[in-house]
Amino acid sequence: MKFLKAHATENDFVVLIDVDDKLDVTPEQVAFLCDRRAGVGGDGLLRVVRRAGAENGIWFMDYRNADGTVAEMCGNGIRAFAHVLVAEGLVDASEFDVDTRAGVKHIRVISADCADAIVSVGMGRVEVTGVSTAAMGEQQFAGIGVDVGNPHLACVIPGMTPSDLADMEFVAPEFDPEFFPKGVNVEVLTELTDGAVHMRVWERGVGETRSCGTGTVAAAQAALADAGIENGSVVVNVPGGSIEVVLADGEATMTGPSNIVFRGELTNEL
Amino acid sequence: MKFLKAHATENDFVVLIDVDDKLDVTPEQVAFLCDRRAGVGGDGLLRVVRRAGAENGIWFMDYRNADGTVAEMCGNGIRAFAHVLVAEGLVDASEFDVDTRAGVKHIRVISADCADAIVSVGMGRVEVTGVSTAAMGEQQFAGIGVDVGNPHLACVIPGMTPSDLADMEFVAPEFDPEFFPKGVNVEVLTELTDGAVHMRVWERGVGETRSCGTGTVAAAQAALADAGIENGSVVVNVPGGSIEVVLADGEATMTGPSNIVFRGELTNEL
Repeated sequence: MKFLKAHATENDFVVLIDVDDKLDVTPEQVAFLCDRRAGVGGDGLLRVVRRAGAENGIWFMDYRNADGTVAEMCGNGIRAFAHVLVAEGLVDASEFDVDTRAGVKHIRVISADCADAIVSVGMGRVEVTGVSTAAMGEQQFAGIGVDVGNPHLACVIPGMTPSDLADMEFVAPEFDPEFFPKGVNVEVLTELTDGAVHMRVWERGVGETRSCGTGTVAAAQAALADAGIENGSVVVNVPGGSIEVVLADGEATMTGPSNIVFRGELTNEL
Repeated sequence: MKFLKAHATENDFVVLIDVDDKLDVTPEQVAFLCDRRAGVGGDGLLRVVRRAGAENGIWFMDYRNADGTVAEMCGNGIRAFAHVLVAEGLVDASEFDVDTRAGVKHIRVISADCADAIVSVGMGRVEVTGVSTAAMGEQQFAGIGVDVGNPHLACVIPGMTPSDLADMEFVAPEFDPEFFPKGVNVEVLTELTDGAVHMRVWERGVGETRSCGTGTVAAAQAALADAGIENGSVVVNVPGGSIEVVLADGEATMTGPSNIVFRGELTNEL
C-alpha cells in the first residue's frame, strides 16, 4: 500500500490515491494510518477518488478524521488534496472542481511542484450569527458567531500583541451552550494591522491545533467587522503558517500553502 | 533521502541507513525529521553506521532525541536498530554487537522478517540505589531507586489492579531532589502476578510515554524485590506493548518486539 504524507499549515494528512474507488477503508484502518506512533500519523486521511459518472470527471475528497469517523470538509485538507492531484499528474488544469460531503468546491492552483504548492479554495457562504462571549481560565472575551458550514466564535482582543497571544494560557473554552448548542470552535486574534492578524484556535472536540481552515475564514470575518470593513482581504497568521482570506459579498476564498513531505509504502498489507 | 519508520512498543523512530558514515545530520535536520506534522515524526532518530576500524565490522547506533540533541542509549531504539540491520540484509547473524554511546550491547535476534521482529538486548548492570518516595497530585508512593545507566524510581503499589493503573491521574511527579539530583524517571506498577506486572512511566524531560526500555528493567527489578525474588523473569506490560526482562546476578536482558511500519522517501532534499 503506497501513500503520500502532506500538510497544509501543519494540519497533516495521509493521502491514498484510489482513482477507481476500489479501496474500502475501514474506520480501524484509518485509525491505524493516522496513529502517530504505530502507523503513519496524521490529523486525518484523504482518499482521492474520481467520480465515474460526472462529465470530464470530478474529483471526490473522501475525508476521514484520525479516529476513523467521516468528516464533511476540511479547508486545509482540500488544499493538500488539490496539490496531490496536480503533483501526481491526475489533473493538468490550474482550475477545477472538487466534490466534498459539504458540496462542490472550486479550486485554483496558483503554483505547484512535486513538493510545494499554493492553492485557492472557494469556501462558500459565511454567515455572521450574532455576538457571544467565551472564557479561557480567568480570561473573558467577546466575539462574533460565524457559520462557515461549522460554528465558530471569533474573538478580536483589543490591544493584544502577537507575543501576548503566543504567551497566553490557551485552555478549553467555556461558551454559551444556548448560542452554540452543538459546541463551537473558538478563535482568539489580534486586531487587523496592515491587512494581517495573528490567531490561535481551539477546535471543538480536538483542542488547540496548529491551524484550522474554516477558523481562518471566521477570524478574517471578525477582523474586518471589527475594523468596520465589509469586503476585503486578511492574512491570518496561525502557528502552522499563513493563510490569506478574501471576503466579498458574504463569500470567502482561502489561499494557502500545501507541502507533500514524503511518499511511503507500508511494510505490511493494510 | 530514503528512510524507514519503526517502532518498538510504540516508542518510534525515523531510521537512516548510513553504512559509510557520510551523513552529517544537523540538530535542525533531526528536529525536522522527527516533527510529527511538518516532517516524518518520531521520538528520535536512529542512524545506522558501520565502524570502519572494527574487526568484522561493528555497528554504531547514532541515536538523537527528537529535539536534535545527542542521546547515549535507548533500550527500545536498539531493538528497532537491530531489526533494521537484519531486515535490510546488513547482518545475517542472529547474534551480534551494537556499539552505542553507552558502550557495546549484545544483541540476539529471536525472529525477524521485513516487518516484525523479536529482539533481545543485554542491558548491562542494574544497581539498586536505595528507597525513596514520589507524589503525583494527591497520591503518594514509595519505591526503589534503580540505576540502569539512567536514574529510575520504580514504585510497586500494593493491591493496585491494571484497571486502577490505567485510570489513575498521571501527572508530573514530585520527588526528592537530594536523592535524584539529575531528576528521575518514575515507574508506577502493579505487584508481580503470574510473572507479570503492568506499568506506566513518566520520563524525565518528556512526560508520560507509551514505553521506556530502561524503565521496564527498573520495574522488573522493583517487582522481583517486592516479591522477595533475587533472580528471575518479569513480563512488563506497558501502554505500547509487552517486554520481558530477565534479571540474573545484577545483569538485565530485555526482550521485546520491533515493527518496521513503512519505508519512505522525502520529496525535498533534507
